Amino acid sequence: MLLNAQDCAALDQTTSALADFDAWRSAFAPGPEGTLYFDANSIGPMPVDAPARMQQVLDAGWRQARRRGWSELDWLQQPASLGAAIAPMLGANAAEVRVCDTTSINQYKLLFFALSHAAPRRVIVLEQDVFPSNRYVAEGIARSGLAELRFIRHADDLQAALAAQDVAVVALSHVDYRTSARLDMAALTRLAHDHGALALWDLSHSAGAVAIELKAAQADLAVGCGYKYLCGGPGAPAYLYVNAQLQGAHWPALAGWMGHADTFSFEPGYRPAPGTDRFLVGTPAVLANVAFSAAADIWRRVSPAALNARHRSLTDTLIELLDEQCGPLGLTVASPRSHAQRGGHVALQFDGAAPLSQAMVARGVVVSSRKPDALRFGVHPLTTTHADLWRAVQILRDLLATGDWRDPRFNGQVI
Amino acid sequence: MLLNAQDCAALDQTTSALADFDAWRSAFAPGPEGTLYFDANSIGPMPVDAPARMQQVLDAGWRQARRRGWSELDWLQQPASLGAAIAPMLGANAAEVRVCDTTSINQYKLLFFALSHAAPRRVIVLEQDVFPSNRYVAEGIARSGLAELRFIRHADDLQAALAAQDVAVVALSHVDYRTSARLDMAALTRLAHDHGALALWDLSHSAGAVAIELKAAQADLAVGCGYKYLCGGPGAPAYLYVNAQLQGAHWPALAGWMGHADTFSFEPGYRPAPGTDRFLVGTPAVLANVAFSAAADIWRRVSPAALNARHRSLTDTLIELLDEQCGPLGLTVASPRSHAQRGGHVALQFDGAAPLSQAMVARGVVVSSRKPDALRFGVHPLTTTHADLWRAVQILRDLLATGDWRDPRFNGQVI
Repeated sequence: MLLNAQDCAALDQTTSALADFDAWRSAFAPGPEGTLYFDANSIGPMPVDAPARMQQVLDAGWRQARRRGWSELDWLQQPASLGAAIAPMLGANAAEVRVCDTTSINQYKLLFFALSHAAPRRVIVLEQDVFPSNRYVAEGIARSGLAELRFIRHADDLQAALAAQDVAVVALSHVDYRTSARLDMAALTRLAHDHGALALWDLSHSAGAVAIELKAAQADLAVGCGYKYLCGGPGAPAYLYVNAQLQGAHWPALAGWMGHADTFSFEPGYRPAPGTDRFLVGTPAVLANVAFSAAADIWRRVSPAALNARHRSLTDTLIELLDEQCGPLGLTVASPRSHAQRGGHVALQFDGAAPLSQAMVARGVVVSSRKPDALRFGVHPLTTTHADLWRAVQILRDLLATGDWRDPRFNGQVI
Repeated sequence: MLLNAQDCAALDQTTSALADFDAWRSAFAPGPEGTLYFDANSIGPMPVDAPARMQQVLDAGWRQARRRGWSELDWLQQPASLGAAIAPMLGANAAEVRVCDTTSINQYKLLFFALSHAAPRRVIVLEQDVFPSNRYVAEGIARSGLAELRFIRHADDLQAALAAQDVAVVALSHVDYRTSARLDMAALTRLAHDHGALALWDLSHSAGAVAIELKAAQADLAVGCGYKYLCGGPGAPAYLYVNAQLQGAHWPALAGWMGHADTFSFEPGYRPAPGTDRFLVGTPAVLANVAFSAAADIWRRVSPAALNARHRSLTDTLIELLDEQCGPLGLTVASPRSHAQRGGHVALQFDGAAPLSQAMVARGVVVSSRKPDALRFGVHPLTTTHADLWRAVQILRDLLATGDWRDPRFNGQVI
């Protein structure tokens, strides 16, 4: 029996009974009337109270408190408090996570730290087709003469890449940004450890969508994006995680005053702060952090297990609908069938993904494409409903059946 | 004849006649009633339309456009457009300035660039008592084995430090964050060049307060803070400047997708963007950049010469008032007497600067202190009036005359 609209509505009720997803959904501002958003992998939805918080910090903070904001408001505590709020979503302890800077800069910091920790080993292993910026960061470090790079085609090749016992750190994407394939964090971390290497995970396409278990997997290091499923706002600060067991005497690559053991003593010499704080560098991005705090207060109250269950139900349903409605029209689900092997989005393989994506957007269904042939549905478990999925797939089916996506106006360049 | 309140009011009229400072002042939101702010060196005042811009980007950008913000709004252009807006204040060309990341991270990028450019030279010269974070950043690079540090006590010692012809880069503060002493950028840059070294300037305590002439001084590199006189907002992104003549094949330390020659081609290998763009790393801080844009639109219209003249009049008046009213009470002006040798603030030397500063704040005059004995008046030329200075100095005189600043409640810790 094929799934129908009533089945989808019923699933919304079932999963809402597990945890109150209607309430979570209402904690976010609705998008434009008539638009269905499936781009949580690009920019997550806005918590409904983000604008009020921003007005508050502009008026009471910037206009009135000004310098006193540093001492009387929470501005200097934000990197730690935001980190603590998202830590349960990562399966980490509060003290191990800080919100700061960008994903690429945090990737640099932690690759550098891993090289210090694992010296004299100097090989970084990374996936050949990783998100380009992760690769660029590592190339930059290698160009500086501080590391050598070893590329693998797929995680299956990791064991061979580790065989020479010369690898300092394995830097992997938890979830592939195109296919949404999720790696086995625990197994691959164990493999790295068995060969004397550290494991650094990029969580950009999983955190806030599915439950992550950094500690249980004994992961050493992680970074990720703040503005995707975590809903920190456009260009939000990123985050980093350093396993507490890794603490040591190593200096950070980027030694700055916010990572000093006693910032406001203005000591002439650098002394790294204990633990994760040493990876802070410059002044916190106060206004961006305040925007992020709206989502952080939501993450403080969400159960990772309930989030994961809802996401599983949504993406299982989406795949079933796509198979049933669009499979016969030439569209293939590229993401793994098992939820444990998927990240936040569901990817379709379609020759013509870019124009099809644009045609979907023109019909009010915001999806995205990535070269060469991936069409992505970024499903946010706190705001997407099963009923939304039903409606989106009907539109997709119609575009495929009519061939309307071939209209030349859908051939523009897309970011 | 001593200056009086009427003289100060008259000076406001005189300098406003040069350029319309009443209009500039009204472009900023007033602080709390009855408070006089002299902490532009910590956080500059808020442009009056910053809240409306922020509401606009939250609603039309985050809530509605979401991913389309990257292609349909100006989000990706902000680092360049904000840089272009402040470039005239720095005496730089628009293409040479980018707004991004933090001052410390930008300092790291440009020290690293200078070391690549000047290789095999590997010595960084810096002032022993520079703002601590600048020192920490350089120490971190040295700790990584990529440079050696050579400290000078004062810029007068620079020639000796350069004598061995082994210096890659001289990293100087344009203005001392305690005394406000301003270095001669043109002369010291020439001295560095004469010895084959590059010059990197930190403009945090001068940009937006006094006219700066990076190009005329043939300065190679510069960084600075966005949230002081430039009024970018609490924790605003910082900026960097790279002289166009320095362009070359060097990779940046932090190679990221926003510094790639073709970001959205998602090429597997890094190719540095031409010019200053290569120093961009991760996703722009969209919300923080929008806050900064309010000030940027003011900077686009301000004449650096008029700004400088107004600041000179204000700080000359402040020093005269301090000498006359507070000199006999034991307070010494520590900043240079010549405006060309001063930065944004006026510093006083007083044994008890920290409690005196707190007593001033309690009386509604927000000044700041720095160890061991500096009291600072951060004068913003677009919002401070000569009449404000008169009132502030009367309160300062009264505190000194009565000894009320010795009250134990003014002994708290201050940031």
